[in-house]
Amino acid sequence: MEVKHAIEQRRSAKMYDVSHRMSEDEIHHLLEYTLLSPTAFNIQHWRFVAVRDPALRAEIRKVSWNQAQVTDASLLLILCMDLKAWDKDPQRYWRNAPQRVQDHMVMGIREYYTGNEQAQRDEGMRSCSLATMNLMLLAKDMGYDSCPMDGFDFDAVARLIRLPADHAICMMVTVGKSMQAPRPRGGQLALDEVFFTDHF
Amino acid sequence: MEVKHAIEQRRSAKMYDVSHRMSEDEIHHLLEYTLLSPTAFNIQHWRFVAVRDPALRAEIRKVSWNQAQVTDASLLLILCMDLKAWDKDPQRYWRNAPQRVQDHMVMGIREYYTGNEQAQRDEGMRSCSLATMNLMLLAKDMGYDSCPMDGFDFDAVARLIRLPADHAICMMVTVGKSMQAPRPRGGQLALDEVFFTDHF
Repeated sequence: MEVKHAIEQRRSAKMYDVSHRMSEDEIHHLLEYTLLSPTAFNIQHWRFVAVRDPALRAEIRKVSWNQAQVTDASLLLILCMDLKAWDKDPQRYWRNAPQRVQDHMVMGIREYYTGNEQAQRDEGMRSCSLATMNLMLLAKDMGYDSCPMDGFDFDAVARLIRLPADHAICMMVTVGKSMQAPRPRGGQLALDEVFFTDHF
Repeated sequence: MEVKHAIEQRRSAKMYDVSHRMSEDEIHHLLEYTLLSPTAFNIQHWRFVAVRDPALRAEIRKVSWNQAQVTDASLLLILCMDLKAWDKDPQRYWRNAPQRVQDHMVMGIREYYTGNEQAQRDEGMRSCSLATMNLMLLAKDMGYDSCPMDGFDFDAVARLIRLPADHAICMMVTVGKSMQAPRPRGGQLALDEVFFTDHF
């Protein structure tokens, strides 16, 4: 599918065909391309949790405002970030580069993140969200619909998926066969309300 | 261009053809499609600042580790978020919907964001980053390269673009004609390091 068409046709799906599940090959294909998304310093902070156990899905639904998509979508992915990935053997993110590039990048990583908790969190949010957009366009390309979600109890979901203490959740994404035609867009802001030249 | 090819071929560009600038029509096309990206509660927190004044570009470069792409790219966009957009006449984000849907969404917005500064910031980071990914794929589709940037002094850039006090910067993006072939990827993590089933 063309980039423009995928962007135009991607609309958030809330009601899915409960009888449909994605195959391992499809999930692998989705991940394979999603992992080509950019991350700052190539840190790849993202951690993807696919929730397949129906009982666990039901538990997550309870702490997600009881939204049906959590149990009914073909795939439920929880996009997490390792907030400390920058400090875990960062050489490996540049192992294909010449030694001096490796050294330079590792120094840059330490300078950027050390002691700056907000920068660590913002970075994870950026990286996971960039990847999520690619994932949703890929889903569209594969004939699926999707929905990015932040309407859930982040702490409760963290406990349910045994999220490590130095990780955080960015959002959840559902993917599947939508059973509902998209509604008209809610009310888009005019271009001059969101676009500026040089300064505000 | 096909979604998969755009995702595969998008690589971060650092060295651009300085003689090239994007036309108004091209920038408009880029924004038009980027604005089809999803935002939570349709709040559209994003604010896009295109920096065209060469003197301002030079000032921003000084506080961006002197990276040439800041002045040399065809387009420099600063992705900002209005942290308080959720509290600024939220009915307008749902003006096309029936009254009961409008009321329900506005109530949800107030419950989600009131008093939660971190949620407001995370939301902006998510929305602006989702949009940025679409923007970079669209750029690729238009024959351009791009680079998402966070290597700059956020406070200094905020002052230079007169960022309102209740806004924040998510990242910058450069777009243009790359003058350099992409290098091999730095060192990608194996799938089993980033992909989990049901829990960590």
